[in-house]
Amino acid sequence: MIIDCHGHYTTAPKQLQTYRDAQIAELANPAAKRTKGTVDVSDDALRASVQPQLNFQSDRGTDVTIFSPRASAMAHHIGDATTSLHWSQQCNDLIYRVCNLFPQKFIGVCQLPQTPSAPLANCIEELERCVNELGFIGCNLNPDPSGGNWTAPPLTDRSWYPFYEKMVELDVPAMVHVSASCNPNFHATGAHYLNADTTAFMQFLTADLFKDFPTLRFIIPHGGGAVPYHWGRYRGLAQDMKRPLLTDLIRNNVFFDTCVYHQAGIDLLLKIVPIDNILFGSEMVGAVRGIDPETGHYFDDTKRYIDGATGLSDADRRKLFEGNARKVYPRFNKRIPE
Amino acid sequence: MIIDCHGHYTTAPKQLQTYRDAQIAELANPAAKRTKGTVDVSDDALRASVQPQLNFQSDRGTDVTIFSPRASAMAHHIGDATTSLHWSQQCNDLIYRVCNLFPQKFIGVCQLPQTPSAPLANCIEELERCVNELGFIGCNLNPDPSGGNWTAPPLTDRSWYPFYEKMVELDVPAMVHVSASCNPNFHATGAHYLNADTTAFMQFLTADLFKDFPTLRFIIPHGGGAVPYHWGRYRGLAQDMKRPLLTDLIRNNVFFDTCVYHQAGIDLLLKIVPIDNILFGSEMVGAVRGIDPETGHYFDDTKRYIDGATGLSDADRRKLFEGNARKVYPRFNKRIPE
Repeated sequence: MIIDCHGHYTTAPKQLQTYRDAQIAELANPAAKRTKGTVDVSDDALRASVQPQLNFQSDRGTDVTIFSPRASAMAHHIGDATTSLHWSQQCNDLIYRVCNLFPQKFIGVCQLPQTPSAPLANCIEELERCVNELGFIGCNLNPDPSGGNWTAPPLTDRSWYPFYEKMVELDVPAMVHVSASCNPNFHATGAHYLNADTTAFMQFLTADLFKDFPTLRFIIPHGGGAVPYHWGRYRGLAQDMKRPLLTDLIRNNVFFDTCVYHQAGIDLLLKIVPIDNILFGSEMVGAVRGIDPETGHYFDDTKRYIDGATGLSDADRRKLFEGNARKVYPRFNKRIPE
Repeated sequence: MIIDCHGHYTTAPKQLQTYRDAQIAELANPAAKRTKGTVDVSDDALRASVQPQLNFQSDRGTDVTIFSPRASAMAHHIGDATTSLHWSQQCNDLIYRVCNLFPQKFIGVCQLPQTPSAPLANCIEELERCVNELGFIGCNLNPDPSGGNWTAPPLTDRSWYPFYEKMVELDVPAMVHVSASCNPNFHATGAHYLNADTTAFMQFLTADLFKDFPTLRFIIPHGGGAVPYHWGRYRGLAQDMKRPLLTDLIRNNVFFDTCVYHQAGIDLLLKIVPIDNILFGSEMVGAVRGIDPETGHYFDDTKRYIDGATGLSDADRRKLFEGNARKVYPRFNKRIPE
């Protein structure tokens, strides 16, 4: 089985955006009654909307996608905690419906109702709802709900601990994933995403978070940002700072996906990062939509790069494609047993 | 000849920090008279202070370092334009003295007196002073004078254009280099530096800056941040956005150094980025000070990785070690002719 740990619902029916547009418009009217409201979309429309993902799964030979709301649309910087709660619940509810329509093809991961002024307001409750009631197996945690102004405390700050306690209790991991950038310096998918990955890794390196939470697990997406390319720099920084060896630091707690869109990048990742800490992912349908003229294949068809990598044993491939995901997301096994 | 394009004066005599401490202390007294003052340090003390760099040059077999003030100490976010001007001038004056003491070993690049509220105040004048009077051959340009809050406009914004006009007129390049981070999210050398590299590249990718300034040249340090590792992502984003091919985009304008501290990272860089766009650099004595227990050599002895790289022709090595630096910093040739 091939599990893609990184897929967002980037092809949701237009009714979802209509809902969001109305919600944002309503922010101009403080007297408006704030309700969750409804996204009026049929099961048939949902089925049609994920046809691109299903086709790609079939064409590329992957089996199931760990599926979450569109990351760039989370936009936690818009509105307040109530805005974020209603929007997150709607997005999560659609993921739930898609997962129920195609239970062998999609398994849910939730968006959290973060907001800059109160980063954890509502988040614990929504995580519990999604895991216990909707059968989700993880969450996307935004280290920068401000959308590029980086006003929240680092992920290792104790203010995040109540949320981590709930993650540990529910035995679900978080993918560290920012959303849209409202800072003109940062292109979302070309800078902000990768910067957040790099930033989070260095936060983890410099603190004792995993001593406090030995079973807490994070996936750093997009191949770990700049980290594997600069592995020597990080090994050296850790050594200078008298921190643990990187392999010990990440062993049970930090994992990278394979959303790196060329062979040489994947080769580096597989060579440098322990195979136990890499999860197959494509971010499909996502940041890069086109076909690479140098290969004739989609840039984000990351399975091809792994198939093309030399030096991986069959056991390594099974870990990378399936075993590691089942380990990092243990609730996956309740949905689709081995 | 082997030219190291990236060295900072991280070993300056303690009198420089004493000056800075007094300058910062004085900010608490608005009535204080603001003068440039003096850094009282002898030539002998300067000679002694750069002995580590000279020893490393000798031990590693490099010849000359393009030398600039300590990047993390620029701290443009402290004080105002006057603070930054006096501090930059003192730092640049020390570089000038070191370069005069060892004219075959160090060639100067200047710190700019940037400040968050007026990013270019004083900068043109100080660049002219350093190039025309002190014989410097380039500058370090900070895309985020706020120190991690990213409040300046992107490097492609027209507000930077007057400075670029002066760079073009003087025929000097800029290394894109942030300074210390006062945002607790960003570790300086482990996150902020690499994020800035990645961010600047994406800014260049999405704008027509080099149509407006065909001879403007930037060095993106630290091996280009996350960019070479994610080259496929950037090729795909550029294609989706109908931007030029990356190789065309960077050809005469964007260059990466080799400050990547392990063999696999350097191998990726050399494989992916056109050799004409790579300049040898080590950032020595810099971010990572230790010896890699896996190799027995200093992490930042980047010459070893290039020596260890396969597939480079002698002509490639000459470009990487010397020719490209002479091309990107044409004033180098006036200081040390070929």
